[in-house]
Amino acid sequence: MRVDVLTLFPEMFTALQQSLLGKALEKDVWSLNVVNFRQFTHDKHQHVDDTPYGGGAGMLLKPEPLYEAMDSLPALPKRRVILLDPAGRRFNQRVADEWSQSDQLVFICGHYEGYDERIRALVTEEASLGDFVITGGELAAMTMIDATVRLLPGVLGNEDSPITDSFATGLLEYPQYTRPAEYRGMKVPEVLMNGDHGKIGRWRYKEALRRTLARRPDLLKKYPLDELGRELLREVKDEEKTHEID
Amino acid sequence: MRVDVLTLFPEMFTALQQSLLGKALEKDVWSLNVVNFRQFTHDKHQHVDDTPYGGGAGMLLKPEPLYEAMDSLPALPKRRVILLDPAGRRFNQRVADEWSQSDQLVFICGHYEGYDERIRALVTEEASLGDFVITGGELAAMTMIDATVRLLPGVLGNEDSPITDSFATGLLEYPQYTRPAEYRGMKVPEVLMNGDHGKIGRWRYKEALRRTLARRPDLLKKYPLDELGRELLREVKDEEKTHEID
Repeated sequence: MRVDVLTLFPEMFTALQQSLLGKALEKDVWSLNVVNFRQFTHDKHQHVDDTPYGGGAGMLLKPEPLYEAMDSLPALPKRRVILLDPAGRRFNQRVADEWSQSDQLVFICGHYEGYDERIRALVTEEASLGDFVITGGELAAMTMIDATVRLLPGVLGNEDSPITDSFATGLLEYPQYTRPAEYRGMKVPEVLMNGDHGKIGRWRYKEALRRTLARRPDLLKKYPLDELGRELLREVKDEEKTHEID
Repeated sequence: MRVDVLTLFPEMFTALQQSLLGKALEKDVWSLNVVNFRQFTHDKHQHVDDTPYGGGAGMLLKPEPLYEAMDSLPALPKRRVILLDPAGRRFNQRVADEWSQSDQLVFICGHYEGYDERIRALVTEEASLGDFVITGGELAAMTMIDATVRLLPGVLGNEDSPITDSFATGLLEYPQYTRPAEYRGMKVPEVLMNGDHGKIGRWRYKEALRRTLARRPDLLKKYPLDELGRELLREVKDEEKTHEID
């Protein structure tokens, strides 16, 4: 997969050269081309923004530098051009899955204020990380790139890993423990230490249900419970009721 | 505000030294202390992770290095310790507002797989950017830090800016335009060019309603419409119906 980024802050993207994504870059699993679109200005002061028609505070990104930056990029067959915008489609695991099937992702990162509406005509989709405002699209783009690229074959050490993630199974993860067996007075649950894999599997399923019920009942509603799941969920609900009475 | 980050990839956080956040660091509006918790290991190979009790794929972050890293930090009066986790509270503008009232934010970034459950006992809250999985908490932490720090006085150029943002007003932003008046055949709407600020205000309000209705009807339901807003929304709905028939 080829990833292009149009930004005024190309240095920020060195953060993607670390860790698993950086290793995958070295292995050519994906490539990253970061373009400072300020280079496509033609005035002496290299202005990328201007005041809004109709008045108002703040500056807007001008259309020309971004249009010319887009013209400078190759267009692979399955290409998506993504604008980071609070009004865009909410990014989630399903979006990451879709995007990971593309040949090329181009991200347009705005900064500070808004941008000229005509810039939207450049893009195939608009995406948002959530209902909050950040100073620029760069961190949002990097987050989405991470979530998408990690799904490409060869990025995670274990080819099976993505399937066991929280949002791939549909439940939140069960509690996990490693050594030491006791730390600062906190002990690992007995059941995990006895080597009975039937009991361990049941405990984990039950605790995943308990956590999902407590924190994300919306996910639980969508989850296709099997017979064991229904039984464990009943147990959880009974236990939680008893706790409330205590 | 003081921000501490516990991570295995401290270099990634140089991305926060750019742009508005970097300038605010220079002005001491906030401070950033990035700690590699690997330095709190005591074995020759500096292991921060170990295999899970009860079996299973992947490694888990051990409790000791993170506990010792936390012990090494000062604790300011209004301190929040935040674990980045997909099971955490969904981050949004309200969370950013709350956090921006703190004296100190400590972020614990996991990586790759999970972490020992006892690490949760270190934190005051767990936060998530959304329903997707990323290779580590670093990009999520940086995004949350950006959204929070930009609310501190002195970060944005214009002290009034945060209030006019998308999620502060409750509606998505209206379309904006800057020069040129025509670009590649696309024209700026007439109304924005005639200097009639009553008409411009009305057009902007109406287009903000139109966009919010089309893309985020959930936000519109929560929005306290005034009389003009109700009238404009009726107009929008009539126009959209006409378009459907066309």
